[in-house]
Amino acid sequence: MNQRTVEILDTTLRDGVQAAGVIFSLEDKLKLVRALDKLGVSYIEAGNPFSNPKDAELFRFAREKLHLKNARLAAFGMTRRGGMRAEDDAGLRALLESGAHIACIVGKASVSQARDVVGVAPEENLAMIEDTARFLTENGMSVFFDAEHFFDGYREDAAYALSTLEAAARGGATRLSLCDTNGGTLPSAIREVVHEVVARFSVPVAIHCHNDAGLATAGTLAAVVAGATQVQGTVNGYGERCGNANLCEVLPNLELKMGLRALPEGNLSLLCDTARFISELANLNMDESMPYVGRNAFAHKGGMHIDGVLKRRDSFEHIDPKLVGNRRRLLISEVAGRSALLTRLRKVAPELTRESEATIRILENVKALEAEGYSFEDADGSLTLRILEALGRRPAFFKVLDFHVFSRPDPGPLNAQAYVKVSVDERVEITADEGDGPVNALDLALRKALSRFYPVLENMRLTDFKVRVVSASGTASAVRVRIDSTDGKNVFSTVGVSTNILEASFIALTDSIDCLLMHHAQVEA
Amino acid sequence: MNQRTVEILDTTLRDGVQAAGVIFSLEDKLKLVRALDKLGVSYIEAGNPFSNPKDAELFRFAREKLHLKNARLAAFGMTRRGGMRAEDDAGLRALLESGAHIACIVGKASVSQARDVVGVAPEENLAMIEDTARFLTENGMSVFFDAEHFFDGYREDAAYALSTLEAAARGGATRLSLCDTNGGTLPSAIREVVHEVVARFSVPVAIHCHNDAGLATAGTLAAVVAGATQVQGTVNGYGERCGNANLCEVLPNLELKMGLRALPEGNLSLLCDTARFISELANLNMDESMPYVGRNAFAHKGGMHIDGVLKRRDSFEHIDPKLVGNRRRLLISEVAGRSALLTRLRKVAPELTRESEATIRILENVKALEAEGYSFEDADGSLTLRILEALGRRPAFFKVLDFHVFSRPDPGPLNAQAYVKVSVDERVEITADEGDGPVNALDLALRKALSRFYPVLENMRLTDFKVRVVSASGTASAVRVRIDSTDGKNVFSTVGVSTNILEASFIALTDSIDCLLMHHAQVEA
Repeated sequence: MNQRTVEILDTTLRDGVQAAGVIFSLEDKLKLVRALDKLGVSYIEAGNPFSNPKDAELFRFAREKLHLKNARLAAFGMTRRGGMRAEDDAGLRALLESGAHIACIVGKASVSQARDVVGVAPEENLAMIEDTARFLTENGMSVFFDAEHFFDGYREDAAYALSTLEAAARGGATRLSLCDTNGGTLPSAIREVVHEVVARFSVPVAIHCHNDAGLATAGTLAAVVAGATQVQGTVNGYGERCGNANLCEVLPNLELKMGLRALPEGNLSLLCDTARFISELANLNMDESMPYVGRNAFAHKGGMHIDGVLKRRDSFEHIDPKLVGNRRRLLISEVAGRSALLTRLRKVAPELTRESEATIRILENVKALEAEGYSFEDADGSLTLRILEALGRRPAFFKVLDFHVFSRPDPGPLNAQAYVKVSVDERVEITADEGDGPVNALDLALRKALSRFYPVLENMRLTDFKVRVVSASGTASAVRVRIDSTDGKNVFSTVGVSTNILEASFIALTDSIDCLLMHHAQVEA
Repeated sequence: MNQRTVEILDTTLRDGVQAAGVIFSLEDKLKLVRALDKLGVSYIEAGNPFSNPKDAELFRFAREKLHLKNARLAAFGMTRRGGMRAEDDAGLRALLESGAHIACIVGKASVSQARDVVGVAPEENLAMIEDTARFLTENGMSVFFDAEHFFDGYREDAAYALSTLEAAARGGATRLSLCDTNGGTLPSAIREVVHEVVARFSVPVAIHCHNDAGLATAGTLAAVVAGATQVQGTVNGYGERCGNANLCEVLPNLELKMGLRALPEGNLSLLCDTARFISELANLNMDESMPYVGRNAFAHKGGMHIDGVLKRRDSFEHIDPKLVGNRRRLLISEVAGRSALLTRLRKVAPELTRESEATIRILENVKALEAEGYSFEDADGSLTLRILEALGRRPAFFKVLDFHVFSRPDPGPLNAQAYVKVSVDERVEITADEGDGPVNALDLALRKALSRFYPVLENMRLTDFKVRVVSASGTASAVRVRIDSTDGKNVFSTVGVSTNILEASFIALTDSIDCLLMHHAQVEA
């Protein structure tokens, strides 16, 4: 099939890092480039080699060490300064020295911005654009011109906005990227303006949207309908203010809803993992309600919804979650009917029915815990243990007879100590350990004591530890602690709630130890 | 001016509570109804009085006690069951008994859904819709018909989908609400179908979008352009899976971008406070990058962006933030140039310039702290103290000479004790207190000791306490503690980072005490 294709330019490393809270180390950036290349985007705008020495380093390393399969790297810079020759501009020389094949050059496409912000006359602004494009082109780079404030500039003075594109095209630019810099343009206006530009220029047109009106995805799709052939955006929509067009929304919409080709065939199913990996690198929690890639994107909570989706997938799923690498989840929660819990219960106790006394009791139990602040939506391990408990089948691997935690105001490492006393059958073990903070000390002491009885715990490792305040009453608030732990192969998710963070951690920790021991008991059985 | 108006139906209390993690108590729901009425929406779909006893209670209470100024309450229910008379259906009787004037009735607008999920023949489905609308109308209610799966049903069998609307209209429905239940329909398709429906029916048409493709806002606006006169959505976009159309995006777009009237004049400026209040009720963190209402929606981080926006507001702001009750923020962060820090610094030390040695040193200092996991973007109090410290001007109100925290595995209240030793000038105070968890105990003991010297601390109260893991290494992770505290009039935001949660809390707590004392020292001076 001869599908129309759309180029993808990812700007997570340039516009994405403008987001509040997003900082990447050099090592992170290299991992991110590899992940994007694997996903299969066409271009990766990897940074500004002039303003940021870390980015210059990244381009150098990429040139020497990275062997990208799908993507080409683009370096970002600005048009030459006013009243200066292009060859004398240190920023432009940095672009040439970066070794990137592509230069994304931002220039003003608005009269008032050129005058009031850059402080140059309209004619000089045009010369800056043209000279810059020509200089870089003549020195072997391919130039993508980012027409900043294009849509606002077009509204202000359409002829001038178009003349900035003409200047870029005369200078040799190979893409004209129309930026809705302030993110306030409606998709209908974007469609009209892009249509006009595509009709006038033979140079391919790109669209670059921001999400300030909640319409970046819609604006991007509207531009593609109007003839734009390159789309710019960021993974998870990271970016200044409300973010850039979110590629996690744009890519599946282009491929699954509009029948276009944006990634190498089959690669769309890498989207979920890529999004999560990059949120880990950014050290930001995923927005779990994010379309397509959030954990909740195909999660069903209402009883009627769960019944419906079990009868027909398309009752409440607009696509097959597998297409983007996601999966369906049936949430156990207050408003869920018994269907979801039953599906979950049957994994543990296949004999239970909808009307079983145990089913009803467990549902009550889960509701009561949720009222306390528990959430089992993301803690399958703890839910399994609570179900087994209600059935009288929770294995008793150990008892904690006592623990004590001490902590002093020492800002250095190992500033907390924990004492624990545990028993397994009739045998008692008392030990202690020290750690970075009280929870770490408790965790280490507990596993140290139990490893004597269960050597498998020596390989146990906590991979995630999250704390969330669930009821607001200052420092006396209840907190929910979520833990992911692993034996190297399996991941166990557990949860604990208490007004005492140590107690909440203790519950989640002991649950995670139980889960691991239970798993290994089953494997060995 | 004779502006075209659009009705707003808020369904936060019905569709919104389908979101993962959203649970409201009865008291919360009443607060939410009052907040929405104050904002000025036309209708509040407040719940399902049949399936949820808490909702029946809400309607009873609302009828007797709430005097709403702008909004009318709507009760949600389903069409009568198949093969049964409407008057015998307990769900419909519950609607009449709710005392609400409006009934939102959901029925299937898709052949396959009626057949496979409800298990009724297409003709019976139509009769269910018509009978239900007629029964409720004859008993004095106004019926809004929610045509579930309308857009998918229309694609499957347009004539049948339209016949469900005809059935509702014959039964007396006063609104035909077209639901994109699975959230997968493109705005262009929504526009076409709504246009077709509006042309055929004299009953006003409503639009109800879900955000599964990231297009709920765009789809909603497209429907309004095509003639829909009612918009349904939720505050903050809460809802099943990826959420419903977000009224925080839809309302400003309708009023500021499309020139329509959706709320009483001037009320749009309540949007920010309403969104934050409802996120507090839902006990969910605000998505701070949310268009219009997020803290980052008008926050500027990049040095160039900060320079630009200080020269011309419209450089990087698509609207005046005041219009939605928001404000501009200049973020102090790694990528910010000196402009932002300078603006901030000058509030504390007006004599500093861009090139001052102190300015440069403070910028370095802030960068180093950020690398440790600090974030001053939301902790103005701590930033002020760090600036004063660097200038050698941080006041020394007290010293903490020692503290000790003890915690035991007792799930009850007051399960932690703290000992503290403080000095003010040469006078030493040693005391202790107990609390719910170690942080609470430390907080209470510290203020108890210092209140002897500073009685103003007796009125100090913590209003927010947030914990965030900032570097992932299991229980040894660094955590960031953010505290908001108040003296009843002013709010002080502070932050502390450490691998020891007690240490991090200690830093944020002592900062907040310093901020309060500093403020009062200035007021008295």
